[in-house]
Amino acid sequence: MSPFAQKLLGEGVGSAILFATVVGSGIMAESLASGNVAVALLGNTLATGAILYVLITMLGPVSGAQFNPAVTLVMRLRGDGSWTDAAAVVAVQIGAGILGVWLAHAMFDLPILQISAKARTGPGQWLGEFVATFGLVLTILGSLRHKPEAVPTAVALFIVAGYWFTSSTSFANPAITIARSLSDSFAGIAPADAPGFIAAQLAGALTAHFTARALFPDRG
Amino acid sequence: MSPFAQKLLGEGVGSAILFATVVGSGIMAESLASGNVAVALLGNTLATGAILYVLITMLGPVSGAQFNPAVTLVMRLRGDGSWTDAAAVVAVQIGAGILGVWLAHAMFDLPILQISAKARTGPGQWLGEFVATFGLVLTILGSLRHKPEAVPTAVALFIVAGYWFTSSTSFANPAITIARSLSDSFAGIAPADAPGFIAAQLAGALTAHFTARALFPDRG
Amino acid sequence: MSPFAQKLLGEGVGSAILFATVVGSGIMAESLASGNVAVALLGNTLATGAILYVLITMLGPVSGAQFNPAVTLVMRLRGDGSWTDAAAVVAVQIGAGILGVWLAHAMFDLPILQISAKARTGPGQWLGEFVATFGLVLTILGSLRHKPEAVPTAVALFIVAGYWFTSSTSFANPAITIARSLSDSFAGIAPADAPGFIAAQLAGALTAHFTARALFPDRG
Amino acid sequence: MSPFAQKLLGEGVGSAILFATVVGSGIMAESLASGNVAVALLGNTLATGAILYVLITMLGPVSGAQFNPAVTLVMRLRGDGSWTDAAAVVAVQIGAGILGVWLAHAMFDLPILQISAKARTGPGQWLGEFVATFGLVLTILGSLRHKPEAVPTAVALFIVAGYWFTSSTSFANPAITIARSLSDSFAGIAPADAPGFIAAQLAGALTAHFTARALFPDRG
Repeated sequence: MSPFAQKLLGEGVGSAILFATVVGSGIMAESLASGNVAVALLGNTLATGAILYVLITMLGPVSGAQFNPAVTLVMRLRGDGSWTDAAAVVAVQIGAGILGVWLAHAMFDLPILQISAKARTGPGQWLGEFVATFGLVLTILGSLRHKPEAVPTAVALFIVAGYWFTSSTSFANPAITIARSLSDSFAGIAPADAPGFIAAQLAGALTAHFTARALFPDRG
Repeated sequence: MSPFAQKLLGEGVGSAILFATVVGSGIMAESLASGNVAVALLGNTLATGAILYVLITMLGPVSGAQFNPAVTLVMRLRGDGSWTDAAAVVAVQIGAGILGVWLAHAMFDLPILQISAKARTGPGQWLGEFVATFGLVLTILGSLRHKPEAVPTAVALFIVAGYWFTSSTSFANPAITIARSLSDSFAGIAPADAPGFIAAQLAGALTAHFTARALFPDRG
Repeated sequence: MSPFAQKLLGEGVGSAILFATVVGSGIMAESLASGNVAVALLGNTLATGAILYVLITMLGPVSGAQFNPAVTLVMRLRGDGSWTDAAAVVAVQIGAGILGVWLAHAMFDLPILQISAKARTGPGQWLGEFVATFGLVLTILGSLRHKPEAVPTAVALFIVAGYWFTSSTSFANPAITIARSLSDSFAGIAPADAPGFIAAQLAGALTAHFTARALFPDRG
Repeated sequence: MSPFAQKLLGEGVGSAILFATVVGSGIMAESLASGNVAVALLGNTLATGAILYVLITMLGPVSGAQFNPAVTLVMRLRGDGSWTDAAAVVAVQIGAGILGVWLAHAMFDLPILQISAKARTGPGQWLGEFVATFGLVLTILGSLRHKPEAVPTAVALFIVAGYWFTSSTSFANPAITIARSLSDSFAGIAPADAPGFIAAQLAGALTAHFTARALFPDRG
């Protein structure tokens, strides 16, 4: 298998497991939490943070473990690979991620094909997604610069925090936003609300890209 | 003591403590959670993840810290030891693991000998076990390949996530499935449902074995 | 950008994200917890501990990642920088930290400008702040002395513990005390009660400074 | 300050903070948890595990960070120091630990002097303490043997698990058993029940001592 095919396989397997975890743990948590949404969010948070550490640890050396078009975009702007490669990676993130959501539905005996009806919109939540993606990308670039071996832990813990401190619960990822629009469950987002989230995410990612240039310049 | 006897002792002590933790923390959590099952699962998750880190850290260098016939099978297929050795290891995992379950019952002043009445069956849960064991074995093989010192954390965190994102709560282990069929408590599984779980676990483990060949090939 | 400007930028970005996390996760947690304050505090704890690890990991090498005038004071007493530099750092911690609180309000569609009405006062809570800041500063100085790479984890986990074992929930930071007086939410503190907290914090920090001299002397 | 005086100071500061955390977080958790004891135990667990990591990281190199007469006994049996030294260390663990409990009471505006009325007795709980202390000592000896830098994490996580999987919630420490008998709160134990716990703890510690000889022999 060529290195690039391996990279695509890594991004595919990782995105599928990650998105299955986000959606599956949301379904499990909501069904068990007796209506206490904070308890459900604790379970959802724990599962998401844990799987992020696992996937980035084992797939980072294979594919970069991005699972996120906003991250792939910033890495491209920093000189990684080509635009064609980046487009293929993003296509795999979205496609495999949707398969992951469907896998979660299948595990919980739910209809595979769903459309979310959960409204997530408004300036507060858009600001939340801006902050979430800004923080996520800054976390990645700062850890890579100063302590690369801490990336799996730092990314996992940023998302753990983000689930609680941002009003939008930190989607922070255009691919997962699309995939979660196909799940009418705890983690869902109505398709009509996805574009607003994605625009805010890309703005946050780009702002982090420029902030990182000032904050974490390469050694001269 | 011969190295192999030490290995069996390590697998025995570890399996007993691990299975006592899974069952004991389930009993404790359910009894305290006032009917909020998500809260109970949080306690069960925390205890299981924590003890996995501890046992793999201290017993990994002694016995490999597998505590799991599906993992032992995959390691055998990758060339570890002999089939006879593997059979002895599996026998110890099951036998000591059952002692661990009985130890949990004794600690909580419950009848030692129990049979679970908890139904866990159906295609959704079988798919859950397939995914759980696939993910667990892939986590082990990927971490071993790229960052062996992260195995204790990665395994612990995969199971933390699995407790929430798989519909079956990630048994992911034939020995623990057998042992948990002997506990009529939070973590139990009716004996009639165990074979379906075990079949799905072995299928998941073998699929991970072949996936890992493509994803984590040895340096040529 | 000069190293000192970079340091101020690092302290500013970090303080803003940290204080936004403390206040934002408090708002989120309280709104979802159905009145179970311990569940709310679990969410608040998880988010705060997680973001501390992230910020100290990525900004420690840039700015020292203090985000806390009590820590900046102790570091000055130990010989870091000048009093003028320290004053500028503290000004940035307070100013950027207040912006972080306002950011949290904006994300949750709340009025930006608020004054807390939450009473936090009395000898018990002052003792709590003394203990919290003593422990935090001792944690920093002890880890720096014996295991500098553990500082992010140790600081994060000390605050995780402090949220639960001190009666005041461990503000342990004069800048965050000021900033939290401007939020009438879960994490708020009435402005009239802030000076008592800050005095206790400074006393605890200085006591830790002298204790550390006995406990963690430099190699002779 | 002589190294031994420094060791005593380290054990004293650490035991006081540890025991204050166990008792203080129990008081906080119970008062906020609206009667859901599992939620209270989650807070108590998080705080205890977190502070153990912190204290062992910063005080391990100073005093050994034992805070526990059962551990001090086993280390003495393995050849550390003298019986006189061990007796002084144990006296400090108990004395400073009691001060820590009183500190927790003072922080929460409770009467300083209390006697617990909480019954904790019977063969199930004694077995729980045996298992808890066996596991704790085995964790320490196994980590020391194979991965000394993991001791803080391994000890913290063993206790996290022990709070849930042992019927006695893992006191696992004669000094803390004595100190907790002086607190009529969540973490308390009636003084009449303390001797049974302590006997079980010492039996568990000694069993671990001998098991470790077989499982973790020194390199020959």
